[in-house]
Amino acid sequence: MGKLTKPLRGIVVPMITPLNDFDTLDNQGLEKLIEHLLAGGVHAIFILGTTGEGPALSYRLRTEIIQKSAKLINGQVPLLVGITDTSFVEAVKVANVAAEAGADGLVLAHPPYFPAAQPEILNYLEHIAKELPLPMFLYNMPSHTKLVFEPKTVRAAADIDGIVGLKDSSAKMVYFHELQRECADKPDFSLLVGQEELLAETVLLGGHGGVNGGANMKPKLYVDLYNASVERDYDKIRTLHKEVMAISGKIYNVGAYSCYLRGLKCAMSCMGICSDALSEPFRPFGKEDRATIQQYVDELGLKA
Amino acid sequence: MGKLTKPLRGIVVPMITPLNDFDTLDNQGLEKLIEHLLAGGVHAIFILGTTGEGPALSYRLRTEIIQKSAKLINGQVPLLVGITDTSFVEAVKVANVAAEAGADGLVLAHPPYFPAAQPEILNYLEHIAKELPLPMFLYNMPSHTKLVFEPKTVRAAADIDGIVGLKDSSAKMVYFHELQRECADKPDFSLLVGQEELLAETVLLGGHGGVNGGANMKPKLYVDLYNASVERDYDKIRTLHKEVMAISGKIYNVGAYSCYLRGLKCAMSCMGICSDALSEPFRPFGKEDRATIQQYVDELGLKA
Amino acid sequence: MGKLTKPLRGIVVPMITPLNDFDTLDNQGLEKLIEHLLAGGVHAIFILGTTGEGPALSYRLRTEIIQKSAKLINGQVPLLVGITDTSFVEAVKVANVAAEAGADGLVLAHPPYFPAAQPEILNYLEHIAKELPLPMFLYNMPSHTKLVFEPKTVRAAADIDGIVGLKDSSAKMVYFHELQRECADKPDFSLLVGQEELLAETVLLGGHGGVNGGANMKPKLYVDLYNASVERDYDKIRTLHKEVMAISGKIYNVGAYSCYLRGLKCAMSCMGICSDALSEPFRPFGKEDRATIQQYVDELGLKA
Amino acid sequence: MGKLTKPLRGIVVPMITPLNDFDTLDNQGLEKLIEHLLAGGVHAIFILGTTGEGPALSYRLRTEIIQKSAKLINGQVPLLVGITDTSFVEAVKVANVAAEAGADGLVLAHPPYFPAAQPEILNYLEHIAKELPLPMFLYNMPSHTKLVFEPKTVRAAADIDGIVGLKDSSAKMVYFHELQRECADKPDFSLLVGQEELLAETVLLGGHGGVNGGANMKPKLYVDLYNASVERDYDKIRTLHKEVMAISGKIYNVGAYSCYLRGLKCAMSCMGICSDALSEPFRPFGKEDRATIQQYVDELGLKA
Repeated sequence: MGKLTKPLRGIVVPMITPLNDFDTLDNQGLEKLIEHLLAGGVHAIFILGTTGEGPALSYRLRTEIIQKSAKLINGQVPLLVGITDTSFVEAVKVANVAAEAGADGLVLAHPPYFPAAQPEILNYLEHIAKELPLPMFLYNMPSHTKLVFEPKTVRAAADIDGIVGLKDSSAKMVYFHELQRECADKPDFSLLVGQEELLAETVLLGGHGGVNGGANMKPKLYVDLYNASVERDYDKIRTLHKEVMAISGKIYNVGAYSCYLRGLKCAMSCMGICSDALSEPFRPFGKEDRATIQQYVDELGLKA
Repeated sequence: MGKLTKPLRGIVVPMITPLNDFDTLDNQGLEKLIEHLLAGGVHAIFILGTTGEGPALSYRLRTEIIQKSAKLINGQVPLLVGITDTSFVEAVKVANVAAEAGADGLVLAHPPYFPAAQPEILNYLEHIAKELPLPMFLYNMPSHTKLVFEPKTVRAAADIDGIVGLKDSSAKMVYFHELQRECADKPDFSLLVGQEELLAETVLLGGHGGVNGGANMKPKLYVDLYNASVERDYDKIRTLHKEVMAISGKIYNVGAYSCYLRGLKCAMSCMGICSDALSEPFRPFGKEDRATIQQYVDELGLKA
Repeated sequence: MGKLTKPLRGIVVPMITPLNDFDTLDNQGLEKLIEHLLAGGVHAIFILGTTGEGPALSYRLRTEIIQKSAKLINGQVPLLVGITDTSFVEAVKVANVAAEAGADGLVLAHPPYFPAAQPEILNYLEHIAKELPLPMFLYNMPSHTKLVFEPKTVRAAADIDGIVGLKDSSAKMVYFHELQRECADKPDFSLLVGQEELLAETVLLGGHGGVNGGANMKPKLYVDLYNASVERDYDKIRTLHKEVMAISGKIYNVGAYSCYLRGLKCAMSCMGICSDALSEPFRPFGKEDRATIQQYVDELGLKA
Repeated sequence: MGKLTKPLRGIVVPMITPLNDFDTLDNQGLEKLIEHLLAGGVHAIFILGTTGEGPALSYRLRTEIIQKSAKLINGQVPLLVGITDTSFVEAVKVANVAAEAGADGLVLAHPPYFPAAQPEILNYLEHIAKELPLPMFLYNMPSHTKLVFEPKTVRAAADIDGIVGLKDSSAKMVYFHELQRECADKPDFSLLVGQEELLAETVLLGGHGGVNGGANMKPKLYVDLYNASVERDYDKIRTLHKEVMAISGKIYNVGAYSCYLRGLKCAMSCMGICSDALSEPFRPFGKEDRATIQQYVDELGLKA
């Protein structure tokens, strides 16, 4: 499709994966979901990331999701596909599936499990970039990989052919600003923030956008906040930022564990978009927590 | 083969994977290595664990290693196979490959990447145990998974059909002793320690053995220390424990990063057993570090 | 003096402590420094915080610094005094010294050493607030205390008489925005950010100001950035924010350890304001690192 | 008194501090407690450590405790005094109080609050050792200081006049064995373990003893386990080690937070030895948790 702007800007929604059970796709849910996201005006869709439970799914299911999503999106917005894997070879395989299905870009975090030093991860990036059929975004995700791409590693990676940006989910804005300083001479290198609570300030201070899970629920809100931030419309920013804070303060704070993933999927289910089934080892909320989420969904006016 | 004792006792060597490059097996190395380990008297061989770089290898290569190792070991000692995976379905697939090749047991750490709470991981174990064709050992590996199996979770897991023991690589002996206290009524549940530096005290205080990487280099030393500990031969314990400390203090402390894996493989290469090639994202030592390892190998009298 | 606004707004400089050696005040340095800060237009001065090495100093020296600073500042701006202490009783004693010297407020982090749970720290705050002779700011400083004031604890603390605000040095803006959401009904409760790299976004999104170490070197820069952020002067913000990033990217990144404190004090010494002596266990930079700082000081145009 | 053996061996009890409230000594409790400890045959008494809540107490109270303890112990066993402090000068002051009262040794962890690098902490030790009037033990306490004395730092410190040993509360036996390897040529340098759960293996593998909080409750048990370990009486070791595990598994696992300190003091109160009052910011257990502790005290046969 080749619709990736340089740099990629705006709201990239890290799409949840509608499931019927841990190894079965919720086809109807997927259709409704993609329609919902496109109607909300998101600038790109990123599947099989953390929010998409990518690494927990079988390769068979990942292939199915890639192919069906590509078909449903049908070039209306760029499609990014997560390929993070413990194994180099398997990551490349998923990338090839994505390219064949017509995806536009790839997203890659550190290979989980083995801790890697900065020179090792840079070697790895140099090696894998040569094998990948599509442009690739780095994915800084220390809460899950326990590793970071240090600013100097990112600057070096920005010189590698095929590496076109970074999604930072560290929630550390000092780090994000250091990236901006390091990459000041690479204006086409996209710097996106993971946490929706940090979207406004990211864009106000020169970042290119957000990869925000909340956009699954109310895509237009995040798109509007992005636009208000680009336009420096402070009153709008303040109002929308508060709404973003209210959503995450409520939906992601129910239950005793795995609150983000379970809360988000439960809300999508309460909104009637798709099932709240999860991949292993996760389980949906029980009745009580679901009732709380339903109440929040109503209070917050979230709807399909 | 069915040769797993209840509980499994002794030295289980977490075998390194001899490679020619990140996706090619060093066949000759594998042959020499297994011969070396069997000659040293190890009680079992565990392939595709952390030391075996399992999660970093392609499934094709993992299958090849399982099949060739099974053939070479040929039932002389039990063969355990690591199946740790981000994906439930893929873990089960590797388990089936192992069973078909004639392996005797499986080893499973937390699925990497997604943090899971204790109730989630217990659900996961209950689910996966039903799908596995062979007995399974839990693998507590917080340095890589950033998660632990809490003692009460382990006790609950010990009641699940097919879960027969635990390898603890947390290096926390207070935790290990808590496991022993929790599982006091399960004398067939095997409790093994990962760190070779802790082998003597583990066995002296009632643990069943060790899964010790150093046994790749000098299997007989660890077997002797295990036996001395079982026999409470205190003078022998002191002497052998010091030799164990000398090996790990030297071989695992060269280079600036990934010292354990790179040091161990480099030593095996200096000993003439196999190549020091590693999976992605690792690289073998350069000349200078290799010279240091060679010197240590000589000093310590390590040989094939 | 009673000059604390409600809420306190602007740039509160966490003043370094000019020393001749670990237990001797650099009197001339203190004079020059306070003059420099006041000339730069800072809104308040905070002594004996982390940047001021407070907890590392003897009580005799802390008393001397409080009394001399109060005299030199002479009511031109509010004076805040750090009282963080492992011991409740000793913290109150320093508070009384501060009140007698004419200080305007106190700053209190978690008592270091013993980890405390949220209910414990809230009890502690309720107890100590009754004993303190001056209004008190909480100081969220997880890098040093390894503990946080959770948002609900902060909201509860905001209802305690005498607790008037919080300085957040966690560098986590999601947390900061959660504090804002929790304290939305307490508009007089001051929320200030520790990291100067986060000053602009803090103020743009409704925070009250910064407690920024860099203001020791160039107070006017941080005051200007604060003002530009209040006035939403976007072009100015971008320019000044970049200068702030350049200063911290350089001055705080020299040397192998304790880079912030040693870099900052070395810069102040290169600027001719005071000695670079430090409290135990710190030592000033050696020749080479000092030369690098001198070069940066020149490049960045830092001057007394 | 000068009764410190070289190296110090056996059970050093880290004495709790009997309090009536956060700043008042429980004099009667102190008397009973010291009598209880001496009757149990402990080899030394260590006051004002972590278990003794040292850093949380006022200096006035610390002085009182030192003087009264010294008088009550009256040279029957060596008396060690904790001097860990955020401030170098104040640590030395407490050391002088201890020496004047007739104490035999000092115990010093990293100064809390400011993180220090290894060269810094070594400089600090060199400096402070010159100022101290008594022999000093290092105290490796990463759970509270978030720092460690690395093995090479310990080896260097062992060459400093006046530094005579180390108490390791890291609970990491690999680290402990590395210390033993580093200090193999310093047979007079005492290496003691903090966790009572690790006492047996420590002594079996050549360590000199334990500084174990449980010895407040049942000093004879820990002394017996130490002796059995010295004598390699394995059957006794197994039995006593299990009793040690039962005590810590129960007494330290009640309540939602600060379980060790609150559980231990509550048990001592249930045993009729002293009050369960704690220093700030701690509070004694409520009725329900106290009832659980009382039940455990009865089950375990703990008595004055």
